[in-house]
Amino acid sequence: MRSTPTAETFPAHTPAASQIFTTVLSQGPLTRLEVARRAGLSAAAVTKAVRPLLADGYLVETADEEARPALGRPATLVRVDGGRALFIGVKATGDELIGVLTDLCCRIRLARRVPLTDRATKAVLAAMTDLVHELLAEAEDFGTPVLGLGVAVSGDVDRTEGVVRYSPFLDWRDVSLAELAAEATGLPVTVENDVRALTVAEQWFGAGVGLSDFAVVTVGAGIGCGLVVHGRVIAGAHGVAGEIGHVTVDPAGPPCRCGNRGCVEAIAGDAAIVRRIRETTGVEVADTAEAVTLAHQGVAGAREAYARAGEAIGRGIATVANLLGPERVIISGEGLAAYDLFAEQIRDTFAAAAFGSAADCDVQTRPLPFEEWARGAAATAIQSFITPDEPRPSR
Amino acid sequence: MRSTPTAETFPAHTPAASQIFTTVLSQGPLTRLEVARRAGLSAAAVTKAVRPLLADGYLVETADEEARPALGRPATLVRVDGGRALFIGVKATGDELIGVLTDLCCRIRLARRVPLTDRATKAVLAAMTDLVHELLAEAEDFGTPVLGLGVAVSGDVDRTEGVVRYSPFLDWRDVSLAELAAEATGLPVTVENDVRALTVAEQWFGAGVGLSDFAVVTVGAGIGCGLVVHGRVIAGAHGVAGEIGHVTVDPAGPPCRCGNRGCVEAIAGDAAIVRRIRETTGVEVADTAEAVTLAHQGVAGAREAYARAGEAIGRGIATVANLLGPERVIISGEGLAAYDLFAEQIRDTFAAAAFGSAADCDVQTRPLPFEEWARGAAATAIQSFITPDEPRPSR
Repeated sequence: MRSTPTAETFPAHTPAASQIFTTVLSQGPLTRLEVARRAGLSAAAVTKAVRPLLADGYLVETADEEARPALGRPATLVRVDGGRALFIGVKATGDELIGVLTDLCCRIRLARRVPLTDRATKAVLAAMTDLVHELLAEAEDFGTPVLGLGVAVSGDVDRTEGVVRYSPFLDWRDVSLAELAAEATGLPVTVENDVRALTVAEQWFGAGVGLSDFAVVTVGAGIGCGLVVHGRVIAGAHGVAGEIGHVTVDPAGPPCRCGNRGCVEAIAGDAAIVRRIRETTGVEVADTAEAVTLAHQGVAGAREAYARAGEAIGRGIATVANLLGPERVIISGEGLAAYDLFAEQIRDTFAAAAFGSAADCDVQTRPLPFEEWARGAAATAIQSFITPDEPRPSR
Repeated sequence: MRSTPTAETFPAHTPAASQIFTTVLSQGPLTRLEVARRAGLSAAAVTKAVRPLLADGYLVETADEEARPALGRPATLVRVDGGRALFIGVKATGDELIGVLTDLCCRIRLARRVPLTDRATKAVLAAMTDLVHELLAEAEDFGTPVLGLGVAVSGDVDRTEGVVRYSPFLDWRDVSLAELAAEATGLPVTVENDVRALTVAEQWFGAGVGLSDFAVVTVGAGIGCGLVVHGRVIAGAHGVAGEIGHVTVDPAGPPCRCGNRGCVEAIAGDAAIVRRIRETTGVEVADTAEAVTLAHQGVAGAREAYARAGEAIGRGIATVANLLGPERVIISGEGLAAYDLFAEQIRDTFAAAAFGSAADCDVQTRPLPFEEWARGAAATAIQSFITPDEPRPSR
């Protein structure tokens, strides 16, 4: 049961063309002149790149009625035709798969969740294939081709090779996920670390639009970080980057799965908080929901565990700010559900540990449900489709 | 006593032209085709950008005799004519000024050191003006114009505004150094943080050539860090970046001048090591030279202080590697004189604290005397001269 692979390719595979398309995608509609200004390119380069994209229907022109001059024609705006193509994004957690069908503008048309009962590669791949086929069947109603699949997985992911090198929550090592998923679905597949995928979505459509340097910090089961520097997401020369979860907060702190002690994640990850509450209160807390409830009831040991977590996160964010000096840090992740329990400690510790004007960094929170992470996965598929320099997806 | 300001400007102020020039400067001589490949530009763009640079003598052509084909003409190589222009670079420490006169290829033609007896802005500026005038007088023998001055100062430096916001070693706050030095010397002036200036020199001419992601970590009076990500030095959205000296190693550690405790610099900076040795041995160690001697004599407290410093530096480097995943980390700075006393601890702590494949980062040491830092300052002046996007120097 294999879908027909799509053979469609983007008509303009130059760095300038994909930069122009991305600018229109994330900031459009815009006049050609404004696209040139924002992309730092000449008007001639924009005109040249836009032509085949208009011809193939990826871009469309509309008159800017709002800016109609007193005499003469209104200015012409360029925008992406979202309906021109569809993409699928899937985020895998340890417990479920979240899938979305998006248009070319990465607007979510449909979203589906399926539980994962087995984390073995084969079982996850089978569930993912079913989910993708379901979304492909639904896509037929739109009469638009699905041009790519993005899959977001936590852990050490090599996007270029399409390999999940190590995912602790899935307990996977060296899984050639892009190849396996391409084989199973017939789609070009891009595999990316889930936090980096979310960061692409924030860069294009979220709180990072127009910023050349920002960070996304996710709190929850793990503590992750996506970093945009000089306008591009950092992948790391050896595949590792953004490991804010393994910034040391206290060398005498609790042991971490990475082999060190007192990492941010070993203090502020969901499991660490639950463990700490058990230790200090003696209550056999079952999960995060119960931990939050205890803290909201005012149980001192529970409140203290969250306060410590907030301090650890604040110190991790300060370390990012001191090293990279981002314009903004966006805190998100499922751990935001408990944000009122540690917001103050995050802010106070950040303010104390940020060096000089690094403290001017704008730290904000954004609740982003897992559908947004799946949207990030779809964004990486769009990125692979339009960008020549990005790793080409497996077929 | 003001020199005549030079009015000469670079003939090709487009991003592509400066990128092409920088590629030839750091990696040339190269064929046009090879320049295009390495700069990621089209051959046509290279040919177009090279033309005015050849006409004005910044670039010259030579035949590639080594690659002479069996039949026909040898390939033509393009290289920078170093003799086309001169630049001056000055590095200010708390104790002396180090000045160099370089050619356009940033080769040092002359170097001078003058002691600083007074750190007040006015006194330093007067000493710097004398030093620059001495170098300008020497430059007359070359019959080539001096086109810019770069000044490198430790601390929080806003290159765009040409302001030293805070330099702890000089005890300066909000000094408009670029404006003052331009006024005093008649040259276009670029002011940059000293470690970032050294990083530019390493990127163009040192251990960073051809790498898009690397870090320079300097050990000595302070612990500094220059970061190159996606091929460009990080400046920080708010002017702070690379503050590895203020990565927390131990929240219960010794107090740091930044107001926190247990920062890398509060454990591994020269003053911190001397202080630690005094505390543990009771010996009234006067300075770093004496501290090194004690450690080399095998005095336990002195050896322990260096071992702790090595662990702190190793942890700082691991934090950089875990967040940014650089290809290489270059350790330098005057503290390398004691490197044998903490090399093992740096390597062991880095290996233990690096997350997964971040440990594959190539950590190496490079002794770079202060003349190399001054050369870095000259490199920033060359950068300002050739690059439209870099902050323009004050006049």
